[in-house]
Amino acid sequence: MTSIKIFCPATIANLSCGFDVLGTCLENVGDEMIIRKSEQKGIRITKIVGANLPLETEKNVAGVAALALLSAIETEFGFEIEIYKNIKAGSGIGSSSASAAGAVFGINELLGKPFSRKELVEFAMQGEILASGSAHADNVAPCLLGGFTLIRNTNPLDIVRIESPSELFATIIHPKIELKTSDMRAVLTPMVSLKSAIIQWGNLGGLISGLHTSDYDLIGRSLQDEIVEPLRGKFIPNFNEIKTIAIENGALGSGISGSGPSIFALCRGIETAEKVGNAMKIVFKKTNIEFDIHVCKINSEGVKTI
Amino acid sequence: MTSIKIFCPATIANLSCGFDVLGTCLENVGDEMIIRKSEQKGIRITKIVGANLPLETEKNVAGVAALALLSAIETEFGFEIEIYKNIKAGSGIGSSSASAAGAVFGINELLGKPFSRKELVEFAMQGEILASGSAHADNVAPCLLGGFTLIRNTNPLDIVRIESPSELFATIIHPKIELKTSDMRAVLTPMVSLKSAIIQWGNLGGLISGLHTSDYDLIGRSLQDEIVEPLRGKFIPNFNEIKTIAIENGALGSGISGSGPSIFALCRGIETAEKVGNAMKIVFKKTNIEFDIHVCKINSEGVKTI
Repeated sequence: MTSIKIFCPATIANLSCGFDVLGTCLENVGDEMIIRKSEQKGIRITKIVGANLPLETEKNVAGVAALALLSAIETEFGFEIEIYKNIKAGSGIGSSSASAAGAVFGINELLGKPFSRKELVEFAMQGEILASGSAHADNVAPCLLGGFTLIRNTNPLDIVRIESPSELFATIIHPKIELKTSDMRAVLTPMVSLKSAIIQWGNLGGLISGLHTSDYDLIGRSLQDEIVEPLRGKFIPNFNEIKTIAIENGALGSGISGSGPSIFALCRGIETAEKVGNAMKIVFKKTNIEFDIHVCKINSEGVKTI
Repeated sequence: MTSIKIFCPATIANLSCGFDVLGTCLENVGDEMIIRKSEQKGIRITKIVGANLPLETEKNVAGVAALALLSAIETEFGFEIEIYKNIKAGSGIGSSSASAAGAVFGINELLGKPFSRKELVEFAMQGEILASGSAHADNVAPCLLGGFTLIRNTNPLDIVRIESPSELFATIIHPKIELKTSDMRAVLTPMVSLKSAIIQWGNLGGLISGLHTSDYDLIGRSLQDEIVEPLRGKFIPNFNEIKTIAIENGALGSGISGSGPSIFALCRGIETAEKVGNAMKIVFKKTNIEFDIHVCKINSEGVKTI
């Protein structure tokens, strides 16, 4: 095998009570990449379609992640990468992570899988440092592993993968506004009340338990964010209205995807997910802001060859 | 049935990362109670063996919990309660909770089970208000339900029961010193760093996941407390030494039981749990403080008729 075409799925990080630790992977929405072995060693980004991103390897998240992998293994050849972006940069559904995860997954396949998917997460995290300044795994882990992932610890990295309940779907609205991740980090307070923290970890425990037992009601009751959403929600137009209408239309819960501006709702079954999407559309059409809506099953497989 | 004899198990609350939300139930260690129907309405505590506790119904946690149950249902008769205490008051393994849970469980049985075990938790919590000033459920819930319990929310009460992995044992050392719950509450800080809180809920997520999948290593890695143990550990003699020796002898993890002074270790298999108990004994004999050691399987059943 000298070349591979792959699908790099979008992801939702944080998931309300799971701030900085939880993420999940989406079907249908994602980028594509073609990766080819080349005689010339090293990594070259040869083509980017659908986004205005740097071709220089060291300035591109896919390039940086790929270089991290190559630094860990001897190879006689190099790789050329073509990136076909569908996930919009800054949408809050893991655009940079899809590129970083896709690059390391594809190269690993072409090398005969010397690394496990979990091992690839560390390489992909190097791309995240370039994208956001910090080595977080809450998008690259679900992109590489599928299902839900809990980052129990970052140093050393300890990732717990949790299979998704089979009827779980996500509806996502992406308002096309720019929210800088750095600004959204800056609104967080370094100290939080112990009382709020206890409520948050009670909910996280409930969410993890609900995922393990396919208890959709418990998942819904647990999808609450005491700490981050009250600070960030106000920067997303119509956030509260979208969240309310999602729940009124049957969503289990709703919150900010990553650091926004996308808003997610988790739903049981595709009919509810579509109904929620239509209701979100009606609310958001009242604004003059462009938006996309995605309705997707939770993706158990993660990044894959197509 | 006009009388019933019951076993009211000891419990461990908090469990490191699960502060204020998690608890588990123990086999072997517990109180006994005899409850009898009486022609005279109301509740009378007729006998207490093994502890110096008030016989007045309104001043006794079992009495208060029983009255809470009776206020929710019409009965033509009353109940007499005999309490045989084995769990020492102030030990940190749910002494008051065992009495409160036992009283409501026994009366509910004699009434033909009008309430579910989960419904009984609310009544038993009234006993906890008398004992500690707050209506917490992290000991009464595991005592009534067995296994592990997560209090996702207190108002309204939302309890998630999680089955224990089958090979899980607890070793507990109870140093016979007095630590006032109110003092142990006072050392807590009302604000905590967001960074510590994230580590704490990452660990709680890992622990819940490990319990669901019987992943003993994950349970062990997750049994860490970023927030409470650093403040409370110093009040328990030889706490760090006991914890270290427990882990060196194979315990999955170790921490403060409830608000102390008991220290628990979770272990895989009885041999390890006993080895840990022996090692704790050697360390603690160097002090002049009296102590008890308990080695128990996690109790899946909770309070029961004997």
